[in-house]
Amino acid sequence: MIQIESPKNEQVIKWKKLHTKKGRAQTGCFLVEGIHLVEEALRSSWIVETILTTNVAPFPGEKTRVVHVSERVMKELSETKSPQGVIAICRKKEMTPQSKLTGIYVLCDRIQDPGNVGTIIRTALAAGASGVVLGAGSVDLFHAKVIRATQGAFFHLPVYHGVLTEWIESFQTQRVPIYGTSLHDAVSYKQVSPISDVALLLGNEGEGVDASLLKQVDKKVYIPQHPKAESLNVAVACGIFLYHFMKDMPVK
Amino acid sequence: MIQIESPKNEQVIKWKKLHTKKGRAQTGCFLVEGIHLVEEALRSSWIVETILTTNVAPFPGEKTRVVHVSERVMKELSETKSPQGVIAICRKKEMTPQSKLTGIYVLCDRIQDPGNVGTIIRTALAAGASGVVLGAGSVDLFHAKVIRATQGAFFHLPVYHGVLTEWIESFQTQRVPIYGTSLHDAVSYKQVSPISDVALLLGNEGEGVDASLLKQVDKKVYIPQHPKAESLNVAVACGIFLYHFMKDMPVK
Repeated sequence: MIQIESPKNEQVIKWKKLHTKKGRAQTGCFLVEGIHLVEEALRSSWIVETILTTNVAPFPGEKTRVVHVSERVMKELSETKSPQGVIAICRKKEMTPQSKLTGIYVLCDRIQDPGNVGTIIRTALAAGASGVVLGAGSVDLFHAKVIRATQGAFFHLPVYHGVLTEWIESFQTQRVPIYGTSLHDAVSYKQVSPISDVALLLGNEGEGVDASLLKQVDKKVYIPQHPKAESLNVAVACGIFLYHFMKDMPVK
Repeated sequence: MIQIESPKNEQVIKWKKLHTKKGRAQTGCFLVEGIHLVEEALRSSWIVETILTTNVAPFPGEKTRVVHVSERVMKELSETKSPQGVIAICRKKEMTPQSKLTGIYVLCDRIQDPGNVGTIIRTALAAGASGVVLGAGSVDLFHAKVIRATQGAFFHLPVYHGVLTEWIESFQTQRVPIYGTSLHDAVSYKQVSPISDVALLLGNEGEGVDASLLKQVDKKVYIPQHPKAESLNVAVACGIFLYHFMKDMPVK
């Protein structure tokens, strides 16, 4: 029943390259791991090329090509401590920006922790945002830990890899204000009214938003904190900002 | 100059036991790793017993006992991928609850991810909460990843290991309302007014708050989400709730 037994199989070696950004760029594919995420992938508009599994029939009735692999192969390809025995090879999709930018966008300037980027995408979907833009220096969407932390949210929300200065120019051309987070010369977010169209610019975990980008924003905003606190996690801050700025609450 | 060279040194083997909950319970100590966190420990009211370091003099003028160890010993004791060469052995402190419960408390019911618990503690400090209670089944405060995710916040905010039903009874006796998060029979948090004294009960990542605990709460609250979203990360939800419920914004 098992079609691929050895971790040294040529195909397995090729798939393993999808663990790296370079390998993903060369093939245009990425891995999605775990039953829940693979189900989400199959239900979405994204292309699932192959399902690798150690189980007999994980998704009855599913027409995608299934390859049965040994536990050893699964362990080789898995990027988690306790593999669930299911990995999907998905085709990357680069999103084309909407010509008219409406709603709330989240721009990420050099956000490096995969858990943070994934959680920001998950939070942005929940808050009804229109998209997330990952600028240069941010970890890429197709990193296994980002995908895991999104909990599948990127299947339902456009995530762009882009040049932040270009995106900022587009927002400015369309008169969409940009709010940048900053601890200096900033106003408390509570003093800012909810708004229909806005771009929220979040920055690197240690350094915040780049100074030259901050010069381009319309408003600098911050979240007040207890004097003994040093900072908030960037994904938590994202949630507090988005749920305050959004004008219409999501319906669910 | 190096006082302990071998990872097989008896003392090193003893310190390594602090990686486990059992080892920490037996000795009453825990490890704090990295320059920033060790500095925070030294500045706090917590007892630092020993500083282990591969550097010559990491904290000039500091009176705590310093033991110089080899890179190999540091690697053995470190719980991070890239050790910074500094670990402190700190004494555990079990907090005694305040007799009068005022302000905002966060109660954690079986929150298992160390990053989530740490980020909740960090967020609670930022929002000016009075304390965090970790109920049975939640990961313990002294787990290395919890400590790291708090970014040192627990040095400045009481964190209790307690029995949630007992804490809930104490809040009830003192007429402090308890808000439990739930997706069923709940009101949107936006419809709930800010409040001076309240206990916010958060639940397990997959299952939410235990049904029997939910029966004891005064109000069930939820955060509205886009129909395609499944859920918010519990630490992000904590931030959105706390920053909405707190009556007085922290001053910084």
